[in-house]
Amino acid sequence: MNNCISFSLKDTIKFLKKNDNYIILTHASPDGDTLGSGYALYYGLKQLGKRVEVICPDVIPQDYAYFLCETDHVAREGATLVAVDIADKRLLGALEEEFGECIDLNIDHHVSNTHYAKALYLDKDASATCEIMYEILLGLKVKLNDTIAQALYTGISTDTGCFKYSCVTAKTHKIAAALYDYNIEADKINKVMFDTKSKALLSLERMVLDTAEYHFDDKCMIVTVTAEMLKETGCKGTELEGITNISRSVVGVIAGVTIKQTADDTFKASIRTYEPLNASEICKALGGGGHKNAAAASLKGSLAEVKQQIIDAIKQQMEATNAWTSAAR
Amino acid sequence: MNNCISFSLKDTIKFLKKNDNYIILTHASPDGDTLGSGYALYYGLKQLGKRVEVICPDVIPQDYAYFLCETDHVAREGATLVAVDIADKRLLGALEEEFGECIDLNIDHHVSNTHYAKALYLDKDASATCEIMYEILLGLKVKLNDTIAQALYTGISTDTGCFKYSCVTAKTHKIAAALYDYNIEADKINKVMFDTKSKALLSLERMVLDTAEYHFDDKCMIVTVTAEMLKETGCKGTELEGITNISRSVVGVIAGVTIKQTADDTFKASIRTYEPLNASEICKALGGGGHKNAAAASLKGSLAEVKQQIIDAIKQQMEATNAWTSAAR
Repeated sequence: MNNCISFSLKDTIKFLKKNDNYIILTHASPDGDTLGSGYALYYGLKQLGKRVEVICPDVIPQDYAYFLCETDHVAREGATLVAVDIADKRLLGALEEEFGECIDLNIDHHVSNTHYAKALYLDKDASATCEIMYEILLGLKVKLNDTIAQALYTGISTDTGCFKYSCVTAKTHKIAAALYDYNIEADKINKVMFDTKSKALLSLERMVLDTAEYHFDDKCMIVTVTAEMLKETGCKGTELEGITNISRSVVGVIAGVTIKQTADDTFKASIRTYEPLNASEICKALGGGGHKNAAAASLKGSLAEVKQQIIDAIKQQMEATNAWTSAAR
Repeated sequence: MNNCISFSLKDTIKFLKKNDNYIILTHASPDGDTLGSGYALYYGLKQLGKRVEVICPDVIPQDYAYFLCETDHVAREGATLVAVDIADKRLLGALEEEFGECIDLNIDHHVSNTHYAKALYLDKDASATCEIMYEILLGLKVKLNDTIAQALYTGISTDTGCFKYSCVTAKTHKIAAALYDYNIEADKINKVMFDTKSKALLSLERMVLDTAEYHFDDKCMIVTVTAEMLKETGCKGTELEGITNISRSVVGVIAGVTIKQTADDTFKASIRTYEPLNASEICKALGGGGHKNAAAASLKGSLAEVKQQIIDAIKQQMEATNAWTSAAR
């Protein structure tokens, strides 16, 4: 943590009014919230007559095209750098070297923010950076329109699993209600973001389901994604994120494990747990780490060896927490 | 349509204040909206000092236990009968014979309501009957509490696919925001309603995915659920509803078909379409019917014969609508 100044909403608004040339940075493997807040801020600052460029370290998926546009080219020298929804400078990916040390303002909602920027406006109670951005735009007296509302809605909807998760508050729904005053076609956005998948991903899901195995009276479920499956289906990147949900969606399962092959003899285990199990403890025993309900570890060996290590670690946690006898979820 | 009187919100509130003994009826195969609105009304009328019974034609799934309770026993004679979220008296199922002709008040949001009750308060712009019930309870000056808020939230969330569908309006989100003032634990509700499935259902999904076949340059996807699969997994009833979503979730597919075996030589085809295809036209050609985007038909023959009939009907619709050359979804 360096000498990062904490900004209030008011400080942030003042800062965004002050300068003329802004570069907005979104995080690598961009999602709806970093893109939504980045482009909403772009449209807002343009209304204030500024020159603004949005830069994303990776290619932006076509799914977001409805709120994207070509932005200005802004000279690096003298530009004000704003990072949106980027908790750690490492998430700048390919842009970290160029911009990691010189972000002027970071606008974020992640409690894990590492305070790497010169100034940070952090609202950890916000469900999404787009929730924060809505208030910033109001403060900047930006006139919302359909496109800005779509960008903001996309960020809020995608970061909350469409209003499903515990990060949602009354404020989240109030902002959503306000965005419905515009023609956002929320149902179409949600269909693309949540209810469509590629034929390739469906094929992969089928293969992954075929690997399902249950342990410890069905309290533990393990699925496997091999390099062969990824090659055969062509699935990659963010498309794979949903796969880890399979093993935690089954009633009664308190340890959902997804083993993904990352090299010939290397596997990444993503573990999701429910009480009384602690995923972080399980993964610590495997040389990894993470949160109480979601953690991961990288393991070397054959698939069978790796699987046995994981099962042993879960068994240990189950014994330590009396999970054998505790009520089923 | 009989001599059904149209009630306003004000009429409805007046009517619910007037009497002392109410029987609230929910629809068969109960869902979150009929139960949520029924029990919210129960708690509300109890606050007003009335005797109230809630009757459901079918067993209520345990998933809804958090807002259920034992209700009064109210004598049929002289009781005021209120149906909630019931568009057609046939949806009373086993209770149709006893109550179908004598419902005093029907509170509903379905545009397809058949006006079977003596009085109907219909708000077809409401995303859920629970959205209407929220306003009724406010009008009755009922003091909301955690349980009532949970009941109302459950109905709104489940009927809108957790705020995903086109029926959602600014009002829907405003009501959700108001319900968050109570301790509703929305994330837990949504996890149960949307993100958990039985081991049996997951097994069935795996089997169903194994049957996936694509036709017409991947514009048509067909999956099959055989009687054997249902027997082997033990899946039945409402659990199966999600299966029809598989075939319409794939990018590029404009005709998603789920063939379900209902007897040795009988199959039900559920067809979901996107523009320019019309599911209703396809199913009409197969002796069935339905809506523009979702329709069904029952077919006799072997699986191979039935499948061929369906493929032929889709081919005809694709030719009639120039779907061959139209842009992919």
